[in-house]
Amino acid sequence: MNAPVLPKVVKGSPESVTTGPVHGSRKVYAPVAGRDDIRVPFREIALTDPNEAPVRVYDPSGPYTETDAAIDLAAGLPQVREPWIAARGYATAEPRAVKPEDNGFAAADKLVAPCPAERTLRKAAPGQMVTQYEFARAGIITEEMIYVAHRENLCREEMLERAEAALADGENFGAAVPAFITPEFVRDEIARGRAIIPANINHTELEPMAIGRNFLVKINANIGNSAVTSSAAEEVEKLVWSIRWGADTVMDLSTGRNIHNIRSWIVRNSPVPIGTVPIYQALEKVGGDPLKLDWEVFKDTLIEQAEQGVDYFTIHAGVRLAHVPLTARRVTGIVSRGGSIMARWCLAGHRESFLYERFDEICDIMRAYDVSFSLGDGLRPGSIADANDAAQFAELETLGELTKIAWDKGCQVMIEGPGHVPMHKIKVNMEKQLRECGEAPFYTLGPLTTDIAPGYDHITSGIGAAMIGWFGTAMLCYVTPKEHLGLPNRDDVKTGVITYKIAAHAADLAKGHPAAQLRDDALSRARFDFRWEDQFNLSLDPDTARAYHDETLPKDAHKVAHFCSMCGPKFCSMKITQDLRAEVLAMEEAGAVIHAAPVMSEAQREAGMKAKSKEFLAEGGKLYVDAAE
Amino acid sequence: MNAPVLPKVVKGSPESVTTGPVHGSRKVYAPVAGRDDIRVPFREIALTDPNEAPVRVYDPSGPYTETDAAIDLAAGLPQVREPWIAARGYATAEPRAVKPEDNGFAAADKLVAPCPAERTLRKAAPGQMVTQYEFARAGIITEEMIYVAHRENLCREEMLERAEAALADGENFGAAVPAFITPEFVRDEIARGRAIIPANINHTELEPMAIGRNFLVKINANIGNSAVTSSAAEEVEKLVWSIRWGADTVMDLSTGRNIHNIRSWIVRNSPVPIGTVPIYQALEKVGGDPLKLDWEVFKDTLIEQAEQGVDYFTIHAGVRLAHVPLTARRVTGIVSRGGSIMARWCLAGHRESFLYERFDEICDIMRAYDVSFSLGDGLRPGSIADANDAAQFAELETLGELTKIAWDKGCQVMIEGPGHVPMHKIKVNMEKQLRECGEAPFYTLGPLTTDIAPGYDHITSGIGAAMIGWFGTAMLCYVTPKEHLGLPNRDDVKTGVITYKIAAHAADLAKGHPAAQLRDDALSRARFDFRWEDQFNLSLDPDTARAYHDETLPKDAHKVAHFCSMCGPKFCSMKITQDLRAEVLAMEEAGAVIHAAPVMSEAQREAGMKAKSKEFLAEGGKLYVDAAE
Repeated sequence: MNAPVLPKVVKGSPESVTTGPVHGSRKVYAPVAGRDDIRVPFREIALTDPNEAPVRVYDPSGPYTETDAAIDLAAGLPQVREPWIAARGYATAEPRAVKPEDNGFAAADKLVAPCPAERTLRKAAPGQMVTQYEFARAGIITEEMIYVAHRENLCREEMLERAEAALADGENFGAAVPAFITPEFVRDEIARGRAIIPANINHTELEPMAIGRNFLVKINANIGNSAVTSSAAEEVEKLVWSIRWGADTVMDLSTGRNIHNIRSWIVRNSPVPIGTVPIYQALEKVGGDPLKLDWEVFKDTLIEQAEQGVDYFTIHAGVRLAHVPLTARRVTGIVSRGGSIMARWCLAGHRESFLYERFDEICDIMRAYDVSFSLGDGLRPGSIADANDAAQFAELETLGELTKIAWDKGCQVMIEGPGHVPMHKIKVNMEKQLRECGEAPFYTLGPLTTDIAPGYDHITSGIGAAMIGWFGTAMLCYVTPKEHLGLPNRDDVKTGVITYKIAAHAADLAKGHPAAQLRDDALSRARFDFRWEDQFNLSLDPDTARAYHDETLPKDAHKVAHFCSMCGPKFCSMKITQDLRAEVLAMEEAGAVIHAAPVMSEAQREAGMKAKSKEFLAEGGKLYVDAAE
Repeated sequence: MNAPVLPKVVKGSPESVTTGPVHGSRKVYAPVAGRDDIRVPFREIALTDPNEAPVRVYDPSGPYTETDAAIDLAAGLPQVREPWIAARGYATAEPRAVKPEDNGFAAADKLVAPCPAERTLRKAAPGQMVTQYEFARAGIITEEMIYVAHRENLCREEMLERAEAALADGENFGAAVPAFITPEFVRDEIARGRAIIPANINHTELEPMAIGRNFLVKINANIGNSAVTSSAAEEVEKLVWSIRWGADTVMDLSTGRNIHNIRSWIVRNSPVPIGTVPIYQALEKVGGDPLKLDWEVFKDTLIEQAEQGVDYFTIHAGVRLAHVPLTARRVTGIVSRGGSIMARWCLAGHRESFLYERFDEICDIMRAYDVSFSLGDGLRPGSIADANDAAQFAELETLGELTKIAWDKGCQVMIEGPGHVPMHKIKVNMEKQLRECGEAPFYTLGPLTTDIAPGYDHITSGIGAAMIGWFGTAMLCYVTPKEHLGLPNRDDVKTGVITYKIAAHAADLAKGHPAAQLRDDALSRARFDFRWEDQFNLSLDPDTARAYHDETLPKDAHKVAHFCSMCGPKFCSMKITQDLRAEVLAMEEAGAVIHAAPVMSEAQREAGMKAKSKEFLAEGGKLYVDAAE
């Protein structure tokens, strides 16, 4: 069996990020017929059984997981979107001059240099079509839509050929996941506002992906800078590590020094959409005092980040002055940082939120670069006691109002959701969001289904995430074991991502996604056949699966052993069943007809089991009878 | 703040188990009015805020978590039930002689000595009332029922006094969880077959507990012997460690040498019900060959274990000859060890299962000691592909048939359930189980909601467990991270138990258990008030919560700091909100009336947000107006 291939770490100044394939996988790029400029990435897992086809899985990890990844952080990733966007004819622009406050007034000796990769800065003119929403509404299929269609279609062609797509059962609560995805379907979903492709025209390195409830459920990982940043590579590595394990988008929640320059490294080296919360940086620019915030500094921050190529912004425009008193009697008040900042601002001056009042201007700025809205839930509940309360729902209604305005302005929109919600209150969140926000994609944090397990909130929230994903949430924001307690380390990030990949996949299965079960089936067949290597490699985390197995059975021979350490060789149910199956199938082969389980009449039932059993046998109840009989 | 109190380890020969309170807690015994012989254990968490009452939580950990626990494994735990059972007048019996095969033919030098604790062996005569079911049917309230009523009533009196019990919302899918539990309610639930108190009359050390969907959702942890057992204490420690973190029952799945003698140590030192799967030991007695199994060896094993005081037996009597072919085309065949053993036995001789044919005799044996049935799901699905298939449901129908027979025989019964089930197929399992099995308690393994995450199956199954617990499952069998891969170590056991405590508690909350939310609320108030010590101590795992916090903020001063490492002191949303709340409440105090969020008319909505907002303000829309106005 293969020895584990350890991921390489790119050395050199200032690069140091994890590269190389996930164990047992290789990166493949699928061509798109007639479009040489579009190659769609997948991760392919080869299996040891020659009768088993390799399994392709969705892969947001970018070029980092190529076998011989040539990564140069200073140059940035290949610009897969550059020719598409260049062809759309936007004017190039001079970037806004960087100001000392953009980097948190970092002193010269502490300043991290910006990423030197040179890119053309573009901005759409008023009236010039630029967002995926505008193209979709105009009936135009963009390269991004074609890319996404092929990416989402993973294995569905095969399923259709095998005529199994129709067999996938599930309950999708009104979603409309098709058996096969065409670029036209993607366009239509975006035009209806039911899906977005977060894709700033200045993020040319992006491998486009879709967020919408008729697509695969996606997950987001949050990253943030350390108090003392040793290098830009250290921050890029957080991104690389998150997407290696399956994060579909990454939010950069950094604060403090160097965030402008670090962000340039992150965006230039990210194949996934990058989201931010601009109010964080705006607040820093005014010295951390919410009362000093104003429209000018916020607007300037939006432009700054949009020019850098950030793909979506969390905008807490739903926190209105009138909502603030609704939170006063909550058990945990306002737990969203952006929400509390805006509530403070509103209440201090008894004035309406400038995010709400200037919403149309925010739309105009974001539209010009195709930055998508992630309408923030600043009043999400922070405890079970506060779930689904008046404050939360008042804000959600406001977000619905804003969604329609953003669409009118040509912008792409998704909506953020809770938070802490007990299981019986989750579904109503989804239903209300769909109703209020015209089916715009829902993007939820968890929700956490109980408050009593700090240290395990990836699990309390993974339960809620799986459920709300099933009900229709398009993207799940991960929660790590450190939630409520501290900053996640590398292991915590991985645990959070894997937990949310579980939630998202469980949701896809339950929705009846036509190809989702292929991977479960392949893994389960490997398990039943004792193909341990295949079982490890098909799992979400091959390294951990292998390590756990090897704790008790480390030898290579055990990787083909027909037992595991749980029952040992003598009592393995799978081993016994393999023999059983062979026997039953051989009998069929020999012409025996297999009777179904005998169905008893009510009278027989009442006659009692023992008598009945004898009766059945006495009546010649044989399990196998000759076919001729 | 308190320094962490490390659990003591009892030294001496052969004792070595973890004792001492869970951090921040103390054991209390609540008296029962008029019954000096009944004292009900709770764990009490004192809080640092003098305005906060201590929080009592359900506590299955037994005397081990007393502050000065005096544990003598050789003497066994105090016999809390001895006077109750002695008063019922059963004949004492001579124990069956121990045979070499009972201990797996362990050689004399490898033989672990049995627990020397002396106990009176009792057995009910035919026709003599003995099971909790029989007493309940006869209208008799036992001490066990009184004990359980007080144990389950935790905090409900307080809720009733505060008139908040009626406020607990939830969706219970037809369960009937009362606002207050009386001994008569417990009796009635048992008489209806809707609950059991697994309580072998020879397990006098047991602290009685109930399993039923109108009680708190319970969890089970599985333990098993190591390949090389160094001491009985090592095996008892697995039990002690499981119940320390919240396991309500423990199944001993040991095989091989010394299992009879080790079992005596476990039962004599267990305050929780012990379950076993007797077919495992029976199989060992016949050298591991399923075809050599017969009724005599099985019957002898039942008596052996019943005499030792095992509280419930998994009996795979639902695996019938006719069901075997239904599994032949499954992706993962039969994954239950007991199920595969019985299927092999049936098919080899083309004969009906002796467990099924001798079911009434099994009932007679188990009744005489009040060993409860856990009717095994030998055909549970082992993969998503096999969920809810003909084999699984045919067996479940048979289990329903057997349930009624066991009740007729006077036995207590619960039913085991799957397995691997995608989310959309979970509810139908619960509904069918309730229907087929006359509402007998359901006891499920997970279910795992996807197959693709070995190494994380505590999470894939925790999702399913929370959901099926909500739908009505009475007890959830834990799954550890090592499931499918290897044997769990100490950390894995703890992770499995905590994950399942989360699932069970999330289920209680969603069902609308009248007092479940008290702990969430207390923890959330502590969180909002930055009472870090209280937050840690109220959590399911205070040690881990504290350790995670201390990774970034280790100083004692940080335990009262009004911020955490996530946002730092400047941006803490909770801090901002505390100030906000104070301000809003002060305004109210001063006589201001708080307006609710303004509701816009449809026409206003259409007029657009900005215009509307101005309009609202122009119309004198003030947030606060004088009370006089």
